[in-house]
Amino acid sequence: MSDYLIGRSRTLTADVRIDRTDVDRARRELAGRVWRTPVVRCDQLDALAGTRLWLKAENLQRGGSFKVRGALLAVDELARSGSRGVVAQSTGNHAIAVALAAREHRLPATFVLPSDAPAGKIRRIRATGAEVLTVGTLLAERVAVVEELRERHGYDTVDPYENPRVVLGQATATAELLAQVVAEGARLDAVVVPVGGGSAVAGACLAAAGSGTAVIGAEPEAVPALTAALRAGRPVTVSAGHTMADGLRPDRIGALPFDLARPAVTSVVTVREAAIADALRAAFLHVRLVIEPAAATALAAALSHAAEHGGDVGVLLSGGNVEPGLITSVLAEQDSLV
Amino acid sequence: MSDYLIGRSRTLTADVRIDRTDVDRARRELAGRVWRTPVVRCDQLDALAGTRLWLKAENLQRGGSFKVRGALLAVDELARSGSRGVVAQSTGNHAIAVALAAREHRLPATFVLPSDAPAGKIRRIRATGAEVLTVGTLLAERVAVVEELRERHGYDTVDPYENPRVVLGQATATAELLAQVVAEGARLDAVVVPVGGGSAVAGACLAAAGSGTAVIGAEPEAVPALTAALRAGRPVTVSAGHTMADGLRPDRIGALPFDLARPAVTSVVTVREAAIADALRAAFLHVRLVIEPAAATALAAALSHAAEHGGDVGVLLSGGNVEPGLITSVLAEQDSLV
Repeated sequence: MSDYLIGRSRTLTADVRIDRTDVDRARRELAGRVWRTPVVRCDQLDALAGTRLWLKAENLQRGGSFKVRGALLAVDELARSGSRGVVAQSTGNHAIAVALAAREHRLPATFVLPSDAPAGKIRRIRATGAEVLTVGTLLAERVAVVEELRERHGYDTVDPYENPRVVLGQATATAELLAQVVAEGARLDAVVVPVGGGSAVAGACLAAAGSGTAVIGAEPEAVPALTAALRAGRPVTVSAGHTMADGLRPDRIGALPFDLARPAVTSVVTVREAAIADALRAAFLHVRLVIEPAAATALAAALSHAAEHGGDVGVLLSGGNVEPGLITSVLAEQDSLV
Repeated sequence: MSDYLIGRSRTLTADVRIDRTDVDRARRELAGRVWRTPVVRCDQLDALAGTRLWLKAENLQRGGSFKVRGALLAVDELARSGSRGVVAQSTGNHAIAVALAAREHRLPATFVLPSDAPAGKIRRIRATGAEVLTVGTLLAERVAVVEELRERHGYDTVDPYENPRVVLGQATATAELLAQVVAEGARLDAVVVPVGGGSAVAGACLAAAGSGTAVIGAEPEAVPALTAALRAGRPVTVSAGHTMADGLRPDRIGALPFDLARPAVTSVVTVREAAIADALRAAFLHVRLVIEPAAATALAAALSHAAEHGGDVGVLLSGGNVEPGLITSVLAEQDSLV
């Protein structure tokens, strides 16, 4: 198991060899255990984007986000190895996903979330019977508590960024999207994915390798962790401003995701808060999908930049675990798009 | 064209011969012009219903409801016959749908809606360039104005209930759902559809004929038009109470839909307002779909009655054209389901 606990040591990532073939194997492992979520089209969004958008609706996924994919792959393996329980830090969705996977294997689970995590996400984790602790708002604070819990309980860590099985699982969302678009007789010129700790963008790079599909990362202007890492040539901790995209608040990109994304990602778009709100509202009013702000960040980047990349652009709508109160307040605001 | 204007004379409906074969032909006519909307599954709703629900997400359809199906079929034919323009009465979604179809054929279009129609539906109709008049709240009041406009402008009526092409189009939503579930290796024991003027339930009866799938109608307790018609043995005008399900406010079932549904519908469930609100909230919080109250009426009936009908039950989520303010107020209420 410790093969996968590579987050603590930067050098270990060099030993990780995962590629497109592993993504295909991951898809087979997950078949029948996650929903094959639909790819949704919408005339009004196409008109706003100036190109055809293909929305991968992982907000409709089990647990309300694409993260159940990686969680199942990782926890399956831990369970097979005789794990006594799991612990993970998360902004919310990874914890919901690991909690569901742990419940499937009847493993105890404890999660460390930031103190500003949405109440609804915490409620969803606790609904599985798992424990939740909250601490600070910085990634490093959560990682320290996870380490302590791991040692105290003898639990296994399921890191949301540094675990190759997690990244492979997240890659299957983009792989499935690419295949679904091909089944409709088209081919994606680009795919836009949100960037938090980096598992989605790293997964997209794995899934799109060799396909000719460009991978565009989208991150809040307030927390430009990938932009900063690409500039520095290595993951760096950024000074995070406030963003409504709670899932994209990690202030540092993971080492494994960075290694995978760095040579493969086509570009990174930073998105203003107002554009995130506009996209969230557009998804609600035009597509009739409830998405969370992280997913809206990818949609916002697609609305503003997709047309530069070609005629068919995919968007990973990563999740739908949003506070009703946030939807209400966003719907009440002036909208520059609609 | 007047072959299809059978609403005014009860006896003419006897001449209409449509069946399952026509539904298949209608599906071919619509291929590539409407979205093949996804069928969505949700663990939490299955737990609430006590059976497996298959949600046909026509809220994601063009125009925000399944009604674009019938509108395209009807307006195509009128356009081929040299129509000068179209007029229709509607609670909203049929008008949005006919307006989109008329715009495709560059035909002028005028619609008559009740004075309590949602502002958003009126806005969507006007966005196509069509005209909207509002009058009273009773079906008979709208029909009278349509008749007047038809004579004054020489426009063709596209009746939402009495036009066989409309009913055939609506039938394709259920036919597609049945086929999509079969493609997933299952078979529907029953399908639950909302009942307003009756085109959805009549269409479902056509689509399900010979399949062994039971057809369950769901109507608001406040406007039990199909329940009353089945009791009387003919369409009767009911005294309509208030319902949030604006799409299900017609106070009389159409003659053609009644003829088609009467011998084929398995049962009709009347749904209380509180249950409609609960279902709308459950769709938002658990499925992450924005649905309108008409669709929530079908979902509510499925949550309470699906388990009686077998292991696999389809639900026609008919549309998603809901006022943001209604969602906001429903989300703020106490929920008996979640």
